[in-house]
This record gives sequence, C-alpha cells and structure tokens, in this order.
Amino acid sequence: MLKTIALSSLHMEYPNAETLKMAIKHTGFDNVSIPLSVLRSLPDVIKKKAGDSEPEESIVLGFKGDGWEVISFSKGPFYGIALDLGTTNIAASISDLSTGERLEELVFDNPQIPYGEDILTRIMRADDDLKRLNSVLITGINGIIKDLCNSAGIRRDNIYAMAVSGNTAMSHFLLDLDPEGIAKYPHVPVVYRPDFLKARDIGININPEAYVYIFPNAGGYIGGDMVAGILCCEMYKDESISVFVDVGTNAEIAIGNKHWIVVGSGAAGPALEGGIVRHGKRASKGAINSVRIEDGNPVYSTIGGERPDGICGSALIDLMAELFREGIIDRKATFVSGDKNIVMTDDGPAYLIVRSEDTANRQDIFVTEKELKAILRSKGAMFTAIRILLAEMGMDFSHINKFYIAGTFGSYIKPKQAIAIGMLPDIAEEHYICLGNTSLKGAEMFLNRWETIDGINSIISKITFNDLSSDKNFMKELSGSLFLPHTDLSLFPSVC
Amino acid sequence: MLKTIALSSLHMEYPNAETLKMAIKHTGFDNVSIPLSVLRSLPDVIKKKAGDSEPEESIVLGFKGDGWEVISFSKGPFYGIALDLGTTNIAASISDLSTGERLEELVFDNPQIPYGEDILTRIMRADDDLKRLNSVLITGINGIIKDLCNSAGIRRDNIYAMAVSGNTAMSHFLLDLDPEGIAKYPHVPVVYRPDFLKARDIGININPEAYVYIFPNAGGYIGGDMVAGILCCEMYKDESISVFVDVGTNAEIAIGNKHWIVVGSGAAGPALEGGIVRHGKRASKGAINSVRIEDGNPVYSTIGGERPDGICGSALIDLMAELFREGIIDRKATFVSGDKNIVMTDDGPAYLIVRSEDTANRQDIFVTEKELKAILRSKGAMFTAIRILLAEMGMDFSHINKFYIAGTFGSYIKPKQAIAIGMLPDIAEEHYICLGNTSLKGAEMFLNRWETIDGINSIISKITFNDLSSDKNFMKELSGSLFLPHTDLSLFPSVC
Repeated sequence: MLKTIALSSLHMEYPNAETLKMAIKHTGFDNVSIPLSVLRSLPDVIKKKAGDSEPEESIVLGFKGDGWEVISFSKGPFYGIALDLGTTNIAASISDLSTGERLEELVFDNPQIPYGEDILTRIMRADDDLKRLNSVLITGINGIIKDLCNSAGIRRDNIYAMAVSGNTAMSHFLLDLDPEGIAKYPHVPVVYRPDFLKARDIGININPEAYVYIFPNAGGYIGGDMVAGILCCEMYKDESISVFVDVGTNAEIAIGNKHWIVVGSGAAGPALEGGIVRHGKRASKGAINSVRIEDGNPVYSTIGGERPDGICGSALIDLMAELFREGIIDRKATFVSGDKNIVMTDDGPAYLIVRSEDTANRQDIFVTEKELKAILRSKGAMFTAIRILLAEMGMDFSHINKFYIAGTFGSYIKPKQAIAIGMLPDIAEEHYICLGNTSLKGAEMFLNRWETIDGINSIISKITFNDLSSDKNFMKELSGSLFLPHTDLSLFPSVC
Repeated sequence: MLKTIALSSLHMEYPNAETLKMAIKHTGFDNVSIPLSVLRSLPDVIKKKAGDSEPEESIVLGFKGDGWEVISFSKGPFYGIALDLGTTNIAASISDLSTGERLEELVFDNPQIPYGEDILTRIMRADDDLKRLNSVLITGINGIIKDLCNSAGIRRDNIYAMAVSGNTAMSHFLLDLDPEGIAKYPHVPVVYRPDFLKARDIGININPEAYVYIFPNAGGYIGGDMVAGILCCEMYKDESISVFVDVGTNAEIAIGNKHWIVVGSGAAGPALEGGIVRHGKRASKGAINSVRIEDGNPVYSTIGGERPDGICGSALIDLMAELFREGIIDRKATFVSGDKNIVMTDDGPAYLIVRSEDTANRQDIFVTEKELKAILRSKGAMFTAIRILLAEMGMDFSHINKFYIAGTFGSYIKPKQAIAIGMLPDIAEEHYICLGNTSLKGAEMFLNRWETIDGINSIISKITFNDLSSDKNFMKELSGSLFLPHTDLSLFPSVC
C-alpha cells in the first residue's frame, strides 16, 4: 500500500506539482494526486533538497485503489499496521514496509465485549449507542497501536499505511456506520467496499495522511476477514478444489477454486473459541493446547510451557477425541464410566484436567458435560456445512485437494483428532494445512504488496453466499452429525 | 459543477452505498464516490425516504474532474459562487444552479492591497507573511459571500459549488501556497492545476462539502483569469483568428484560433484601471465612463447617472482622444494650447473635467499630463504587443476576425476612440466585441455547465506564452507607438 521514491532520484527540472507528478510517472507510478497539504510543503522540500547536507528524504506514495497520492515527504522509516477485527479478539501486527518483516504482534479482547458478547447484541445496542461502540473500539485500537509502537520502538507518525480485515459488523463499527441493516432482512450493510480512508478521518492515531484499507465484505455474512483468509490461502488461484475453514467465533467455510467460491456458515455457537467454555481461553500463553489421556490420566501441554490458566480449542478437540477413545463418553458425549477424573461441579458433571494446585490462577480446569455437548453441536454443524456445500456443487470429500484451517488456535489443531470426533472429513492428513490467523496475514499481504488488490477484486467477483440456515438438507443432515463421529460410520473409515 | 437527482427516482432495491452508486450510474453519472460522512448519513436518509411525508430530498453530486462525489442529500435550493480574483479588485457573483440565473454580483477591493498595491510587492512580502496574506484574503472572500447571501436571501449551506479564476499569484495566495517561484527565474508556480478542492480545506464558508474549482494557470504569466476569458469568448473553437485583450491591472493579450493560442502581456503599468490615475476609479456607480469635449468644455456621463467621484478607463481613452482631436495635447500627450480647462496642480499641469462643486466627494476631478503620458505608454504597449504577437505568427491586423475586449470597464470602451489614440488596431468597428468581466463570466460558465471542463482542457493544450519583455522586436516597435496615434500613420488610415 506504500511506495517510496528517493527525492534526489527525480532530477526535477522545475520545482512544482506537475513536474513532480511527471517525474513520479517516469518511475512507473501513474495517476498520482497531490493534496493541498503536500502542495503547501513542496517549495520547502525542494529547497532542502537543493542544500543537500541533510539526510535524503523520500516521496511517500500512498495507494488509494484507483491511483496513488503523495502523502508526505519523509526520511522514514516506513511502517504499516495490519488489523484483524474479530468479534471476540482483535489481533494487530506492525511491519517494516521496506522489508515486509513483521516486527511485533499483539492480540487483545475486543473492547466492545462489555456491550455484548455476541455481535447481534451489539448491533441491537447500536440503535442508541453507535457513537459509544465506535469510540470504545477506536480507543482500543489506538491503545494497541501505542503498545505496538512502544515495544517496537517506533514513532506513530512513521506508520504510513494500515489494512483492516474484519467481519461486516465490526467494519461498520470501526467506521461509525449504522450496522442495523446487517441484522435485519434483507441483510444489507451500509457499504460493501469502504476501501481506502484517511487515518485522520476515522480517528486512528497513525500518520494522519496515511490511508487505511478496509477489506471488502460480500454481504452481511461474508466479512472482510473471510476475504482476507481466501486471499491468504490463495485457493482462488487453483484449478483444484480447496476448502477453507476459519474457526473463529463462527466457523465460516469457503469451498471453491479459481472459477467459483461458495461461502457458508457452520454457525452453531462459538464453543471452540475462548469465552463460552467456562475455562476456555484463546490460543495464547498459558492456554492448554493439547491433551492426551495416558494410563487413565490427562497429560497436557501449554502454549509457552507456562502453568495453565485455561484451555483452547485445539485441546477441546483432543479432549473429546480422547474421552471417546477411552470410553469415558458415549457417542452422544454423555459420561458413561465412573472415571476417577469425573467430578461434580455447580454446572453438573465435568472432566477434571488440571487440579487447582497446578494452575496459574489456582482454579480447577475442567470441561463439563454440557460443554462437551456444545462442542458436539459445533463440530456437527461444521462437518455438515462442509458436506452440504460440496454436495450442492455435485461433489463430495474426495474432491478436496487442499483443506485450509485458519483461526487463532488453528495452528495447534491435530487433524487426526478432529477427524476422530467427526469435525473434519476423513481424508488423508496431507490434505490439511494449518495457517493460523489468516485474517491478519491477508491484511499483512496487502499492506506489503499493493498488487494484491487484484486478488481481492478477483475473490469478490467469484464469491457467492449459500445461506445454510434456511437450507432443508442442512437441517436434515445436521441431526446425523450430532454423534461421535457420526451416525453414518461409513463416512469415517479411518476412525471406526 | 453540480447535479441533483431526486432520491425517489432511484427505486433502490437495497439501501446501501453500492446500490446508490449503481442507481446513480443508471441516470448517466459514472465514476461516483461516496465519502465517509455521507455513508454515515445514508441509513437515515433512506428511512426518511421510506416515510415519504417529508418534502423530497435530492442526491447532490459534486463534480471533481475525474468523476462525481455524493456531497450531500438536500432539498435544496442549490446555489453556486463564481469568483474573479484580481490583484486590485475581486468580483463575485451568486447563481441559482437549477436555472443558471445570476442573482447578485459584487465587486470589492482586494483586501491584500494594504500589503502591496502590486502583486510583486505582495509576493516578496509572502516570504515572512504568507499566512497573513492568505487569511486576509479568505476573510475578505467570506465577507463578500456573506454579503451576497444576505442580499439574495440565501443560506451559505445552500452554496454547493464555487469556481475561482484569478491570476497565478492570487490563486496561490488563496490556497496558502508559496508564490515565490512565480517571481523568480524560471518563473514556475507551485502548481499549474490545483483543480478541485473542498471548501472546508481552504476555509471558504459555503457548504463544507462543496467543491471549489480553481481555474488552471499555464505558468506564472498566464493566469486562470486568462484561461477563463478565453473560455468565455470561445475563440478556441473558431477556425478564424481572434484577439482577446483583458484590460485589467495588466493588459494580457491572447491571439489564436482552434489550433493554437499565443499569450503575451502588454504590461506597461496599470494606468487604465483605477488606482494609478489619482482620480481613477473602477467601472462602478459614480465613475465617469465617457467624456466628450463640446464647445471647448468637457461633457461627461457617469455609471448609474450619479454625481461623479472618479474616472474609469473608458473615459480616460475618450479624454485622450478628445484632447488630441481638439489640439489640446500634441502627439506626445503634452499640453500645447492655453486651454481654459488646463489647471496647475501639485503634480503639474492637468485637465480639469469636473469642478469640486459638481462631484460627489467635493474634490476636483482632473487628469494630469504625467498621467496622460502613463496612459500613452500603456496604450503603446498594448498596441505593440498585439502587433508583435501577430507578426511572429506571420500575420497582421487584417487577419483579425474577432477582437474581444474584456475587463471591468471593457463594456464602456468605444473602439473608435481607442483606435484614435492608437491603442487598438485600425480595423472596422464590427470586429470589436466588448465582453465585460470575462474572468467572472468564465467561472460562471463552468459553475453552470461541468462539460465546460473539456473547453478548459482544450485551451490548456493549445496555449503557449510569448515573453515579450525579452523580445527585441517588441522593444524596438514600442518606441514608435509612444505617439498619438503612432509614428507610422499608415497604420491608422481612418484616423489621419
């Protein structure tokens, strides 16, 4: 999204706007505009260039979709921010735009959570309180930018570009746009493509002239985060069929190739991401990310090797697979044996993973039967969604060439365990590719390579939404998938 | 520069930005952008449209050169301001953009005059004091806009477009751009084409979202006022040769046709516009605009029939022609007879036109011999410039088809008298066309018809500057023209 050209390289005959434009054009950048603020500084910049004792300045060009804008003259360095705006978590990274290197990354809770855990509650709330929902979000983002700058030792004015991918409602909150239309029929947002906006116009504390790119949504249900994910995995470039699953707050699924992409949502509650399971936690330091049951006892590992203070999605999948394999739960995720680790809690029976004396927060870490049943619904919904989306294109699992798993905890998922509980289709393990946070990575890709806009446009031109929530086949098939691994065991030859 | 489309005519299926754009496209307007501020108001506007008890709103589209921007939703009415930014005078008019009708017009002194009568003094001053020169100008313009609104009974927020034509330095002062480059070799301004700017960005108090168009200059010497003048007289559309003379502070001359236009300056002091002649005054109420000498006494008329309080350029031309015809001055504009109206003043001998008892300000109105000689230089410079510009294109006066005279007092000039003193070439009177303030009229043309941009671009592509001040032929010929009407009497057969 940014290009810099050494001022001295231009050999401008006459120090004015049009010769500057022409000189930039000669370096290969067409359609350059110069705003008034830059025009005002132009004579001084040229004078400084003439007396060349100073270190050399560059012309800083910001990409704005239909061309470039001279946004500043600066000696640099030049940084960019990528932002993944999730309903529950917000991830941000800072990159050196000269090298493309990611310098720092941070994840924090969405500061809107006190106004509603789920996005629908917040949309309802926006009717009276949109300004406040916008301002807590902007304040939160500015806080994370400050933190990123502090830990990387960077001045905020040196951040000259920003790319944001988020779901449609979060993008609307960011821009102080009424999200009501997203929640009501016919589910139309205020804008599909906000595209490029000035940082100062949306209140983001980076260089005020910097452009902020908002990834496009393709309707209320296909957010910019999904578009960024598809961009990141590059499935839109392949001839063969790929599946892309973003296991965030809602499991969103894309299936397709270079000719078409269908998106559906396997939404059945956010059981796999932190927040719903009582001891659930996002994939960050101290989270249990893997569980085995050995000799009747749970053996776990944590991210960073810390004392545990919660359990993340990949370990929940492990746990369910292990409990089923050991016969501790039945095919409907009900406790059947009198296993010594089953304890009674105020929320019914639960499987104890770590005793309070071994945890960071001195609380037992357990997963209740109710929670296991919620995970069962989640995995069933995801599996069914993939199956139906493929079936409606006349395909089955055998057509899948690459299966991308995205999401903060996606990197820790063991496909074999996810197959064992019937969450993922029973295909050979080499088809599975874990990508981590593709929403953030997609934003970083665009930040570092403006040509990626062609990929984004290509994705938007191919993508369609299949509303599974009103699909009769989906509802029929879903009930069969609410078993471990499934009622139709022929679907899982490697498990049974 | 403005288009309005009734909201109700759009039949938008979905109330969002992209469907609005598409609907606008169907009405024939391509390349439409919607800024964030308008996106924010979109849901409310659509809701209001649904409950159609309110009077109908329109979508207000502002032209910005490469396309259109939705700048507002409004019930109107829709007005525009045209501004002619002269060094000495600023003229402004307000038009109803629905009908194209001009409602009010005002002329006022350039508020920068206390910082320097001539533009060069102000440019030197700008080195320390650019901000102040900018702010007095903006304050002055906002004052005149307020006056225009008051007398037309209009709210400033209903002004949705503005077009400004002025000389290069004045355009720079308006935009707070350093004018130094205009005065120094190689005479390059900061910008040739500032084009479209938001009213709020330059501090003009009209609708803050309105676009302000600044007429392009073609170098330090060909200002936007000249471009507006050429636009207004339409000489750039004709096959035959036209001459266009803007008798403002400096007499600027354009010669050409649909294939080429050459501009030169007959700059020899601003003797013809108010300010330099002691009793000089711009062509406004109370100015003597015509003088005859009958039975040895001056007979005059004034603009508006008021008591006189000064004399404008057309009357100075009359006076010189009459004094010469009556033999009161010789061919070098020296008093020769002992005419009873010649009086002695503190600035030497002068011809008395009106005695103090008959003037509005109770002061004698006279023109001194020194002033007559200044006029002689001015008329000589203008005549020579026209002659040389034609000669360098291999032409003479016989090639002129149309001769346009512009300038505030241009409407009052009698070509016959101007020919008599050797200011204008001795061609048949029907070739002369007086146009008044073409800088203002050109700005009004663009305000009311955005398609005029093609004409402006066409002019810019044809125009070249001929620097007569360094032209040896010009200097040689000039000396011959410092006589009444000329040393070469064969050039003025109708006079001699």
